[in-house]
Amino acid sequence: MPQILGHNFIGGSRSAAGAIVVHSVDASTGENLPYDFYQATVEEVDAAANAAASAYPVYRTLSAERRAQFLDAIAEEIDALDDDFIATVCCETALPTARIQGERGRVTGQMRLFAKVLRRGDFYGARIDLPRPERKPAPRPDLRQYRIGVGPVGVFGASNFPLAFSTAGGDTASALAAGCPVVFKAHSGHMATAELVAEAILRAADKTDMPKGVFNMIYGGGVGEWLVKHPAIQAVGFTGSLKGGRALCNMAAARPQPIPVFAEMSSINPVIVLPQALGLRGERIASELAASIVQGCGQFCTNPGLIIGLSSPTFTEFQKRLAGQINDQPPQTMLNIGTLGSYGRGLKALHAHAGITHLAGSEQQGDQAHPQLFKADVSLLLDGDELLQEEVFGPTSIVVEVADQSQLDQALRSLHGQLTATLLVDGDDLQRFSELTALLEQKVGRILINGYPTGVEVVDSMVHGGPYPATSDARGTSVGTLAIDRYLRPVCFQNYPDSALPDALKNANPLGIQRLVDGVATTSAITA
Amino acid sequence: MPQILGHNFIGGSRSAAGAIVVHSVDASTGENLPYDFYQATVEEVDAAANAAASAYPVYRTLSAERRAQFLDAIAEEIDALDDDFIATVCCETALPTARIQGERGRVTGQMRLFAKVLRRGDFYGARIDLPRPERKPAPRPDLRQYRIGVGPVGVFGASNFPLAFSTAGGDTASALAAGCPVVFKAHSGHMATAELVAEAILRAADKTDMPKGVFNMIYGGGVGEWLVKHPAIQAVGFTGSLKGGRALCNMAAARPQPIPVFAEMSSINPVIVLPQALGLRGERIASELAASIVQGCGQFCTNPGLIIGLSSPTFTEFQKRLAGQINDQPPQTMLNIGTLGSYGRGLKALHAHAGITHLAGSEQQGDQAHPQLFKADVSLLLDGDELLQEEVFGPTSIVVEVADQSQLDQALRSLHGQLTATLLVDGDDLQRFSELTALLEQKVGRILINGYPTGVEVVDSMVHGGPYPATSDARGTSVGTLAIDRYLRPVCFQNYPDSALPDALKNANPLGIQRLVDGVATTSAITA
Repeated sequence: MPQILGHNFIGGSRSAAGAIVVHSVDASTGENLPYDFYQATVEEVDAAANAAASAYPVYRTLSAERRAQFLDAIAEEIDALDDDFIATVCCETALPTARIQGERGRVTGQMRLFAKVLRRGDFYGARIDLPRPERKPAPRPDLRQYRIGVGPVGVFGASNFPLAFSTAGGDTASALAAGCPVVFKAHSGHMATAELVAEAILRAADKTDMPKGVFNMIYGGGVGEWLVKHPAIQAVGFTGSLKGGRALCNMAAARPQPIPVFAEMSSINPVIVLPQALGLRGERIASELAASIVQGCGQFCTNPGLIIGLSSPTFTEFQKRLAGQINDQPPQTMLNIGTLGSYGRGLKALHAHAGITHLAGSEQQGDQAHPQLFKADVSLLLDGDELLQEEVFGPTSIVVEVADQSQLDQALRSLHGQLTATLLVDGDDLQRFSELTALLEQKVGRILINGYPTGVEVVDSMVHGGPYPATSDARGTSVGTLAIDRYLRPVCFQNYPDSALPDALKNANPLGIQRLVDGVATTSAITA
Repeated sequence: MPQILGHNFIGGSRSAAGAIVVHSVDASTGENLPYDFYQATVEEVDAAANAAASAYPVYRTLSAERRAQFLDAIAEEIDALDDDFIATVCCETALPTARIQGERGRVTGQMRLFAKVLRRGDFYGARIDLPRPERKPAPRPDLRQYRIGVGPVGVFGASNFPLAFSTAGGDTASALAAGCPVVFKAHSGHMATAELVAEAILRAADKTDMPKGVFNMIYGGGVGEWLVKHPAIQAVGFTGSLKGGRALCNMAAARPQPIPVFAEMSSINPVIVLPQALGLRGERIASELAASIVQGCGQFCTNPGLIIGLSSPTFTEFQKRLAGQINDQPPQTMLNIGTLGSYGRGLKALHAHAGITHLAGSEQQGDQAHPQLFKADVSLLLDGDELLQEEVFGPTSIVVEVADQSQLDQALRSLHGQLTATLLVDGDDLQRFSELTALLEQKVGRILINGYPTGVEVVDSMVHGGPYPATSDARGTSVGTLAIDRYLRPVCFQNYPDSALPDALKNANPLGIQRLVDGVATTSAITA
């Protein structure tokens, strides 16, 4: 069993000023784990935000190379965590060992990828317009632009990825890369995990001589509200429910100084099975789709919650196969009792709806989640029935049968914003349904062909985002290197002497980065 | 006198369904001009937003070259407007002919610059990560990202730049460039100007065969609220008062689907006169600064509203000179009676404040604005007195004397967010006060050395933005080509066949644009 202190992380020290003690739970047994976590007081949240604010002027002006070394060191520390750590994560989340090992690799790979981005230097967005002293009626001045971190960022961890969307996850990595100190609100579902990761981050901060307060973490329920409302916090990253995310957005918008919130919330990730694919490999699709639906007990933001096909005997046959596959899937333990409760309530609402029929799955009862399959009348989609648009978090999905291509298009147009949409195609499906790409582009952040949405790669080109309610701002992504853009803002220098400019904008281009000089992308130095 | 119909512009047609007729005013005489403008009804606002929504799927998928041709054609049409047009703008705004001619050049230059951006193709943000079929445990798919327009944009024109921040101004140009149809709310201060420019845009749309509804314009008071709340509108651009901008932000945040608002609002643009500059050329600075304060009757967002210097006999002398210069400036006619009224009220509040003394300017009375100079005790800045932080729109400025360098830093730290900050330096000023750059970077969008903030160049590297309350989102700029970023969002394609990808992402790179391929910037094609 690892040593867990349970104190808040504030400015490089630990603090337990409060009287409320909260507990972490063994997700499989529901028993409290033998650790005490001290809920942060309002003064501690204030201190954590102020520690981040104090670190900001120092941290943001460190060279990109120094920040990259910090991120690399975090990766190293997390890679070095032992089997006890993995066991702790599995205990708190009921997720299997192999999954958690894989997720750790994703987290450390992500840190290293952001270190690469920092060394590559395109995040600076360096732009230079050279002076035109001869211009009439007035000379044009020297103008240079680069981007800096917006300030301290508040990050909320998600329950379903205790590593990749948590303490050292994508929001933290992108904020730290941008030069923004972080105050992290530990998720109550995996506080021991959070503590071990936060300690790893602080060891890395010590080793690379980062300012105190570059990373802070607070425990407890309801403390996130103080964080979002704190004047030092300049942006918020969140992954979780639509209700929770929207509440944070509303708080942030009502502040004396409104701040941006990047909330990744609710998505039902439609999968459209087109006729040729269905005819040629319906059986395989049924079994792959069932696997995607129950993967990680359906606790993925990109879980396929809606399966759409065109009415035909083959599609009828496919639904039977898929129902059979779902009936064959064993129940699984969810992340926590709250999640299981929500799943049960979500299923109840589906069962109770007159336009929805139950296709597969044994009765939901006991400590585990039983995979389910439903079918909804297409009218529910066309009429914008809220029940069909809302994510039921867990191993369940809903089939919708459309009459023809025109009704398919109409049904897709009725969809709210989504993280992903998937087209399963073969032969000339994509040509015949060529309108779908443009249509889905307007609805989602990522369109997949012949894959399943539950895999999210951490690369430059990933978009884990999309129109509301998938996220609160379709212009961001919370996975992939573009995530850093959410926490950067441009600053322009007019007629600055070269010596006083940041390195990214100096004539000699000492960082060797690509810059837009008089409208042309170049890595060359500027010669006077 | 030009022909003015006064009907709303909806989907390529004109509409005057309402009963409320509003009038445009001769800014110099206060007399109504002989034009009737029909305030848009709620149905007309709905129709305008729906027309933009109908145009969106077509317009956004036009090639960048086609959109560039449209922008070029708009520039051509506006350049071709005759002297009657210039006379109309001057009549509605009381701005001098040369200024309006210059502003027209800025507007058409801006349109052409965005056309260049479209042809350059970096706005696509194209990123490609090639597949790794050999990767274990699972192969990595092919992933490609580019950016598309967010959807129809609502734009609110400002009073102070009847061309450059209005109908065909920076917000409209950047939205159209991004592929977003526009619904423009004409400013009530220059509706005839707005009509003539809107007609020019529609002629350009016809000539370049753009979809109906690519540009729409509505007249009237209070109609903007319907626009911001309309479900088809996906983003808002605004330039104006803090009160007006914040109200739009609040409306947008409270929608069922919240949308981003880019409001450029209130800035007092501090000018810091450092000792060596003061000693070497105090007299010249006083006269240049006075000219900047009264330029365009002080009706610039970047008007220098705060002048800070270090206590010394030279600075005392400088204040006298500046006061003398301000006393020499003639009164000028403001944009409209409302603006003059606000100016008078702003001055009254300054006169009434115990910590503020009047240094120069004849009593504010009559139809014109009299330039003024005040002095505030530094404690007002240090204590965050709201009066000092709020822009008084017009030809006035406030001097603040700080005791020493440490008090200067403290005073600047107390400032709210600003569009600009200016350092007037000479000799070793910048070395001696080397902390100022980093400090001001955290407060403003643009820092100038030895210039005056009232000139805003339209170039790639301009930032006309800054932390709240200068704008509602420091990550945007409303001048310069980066403005297009506000209206773009990323979309990712996974395992798409080459033929179905957008041109920007095809292997052959048919657009010849720069792309980030496996983390390396390149214009090369991808060979299989």
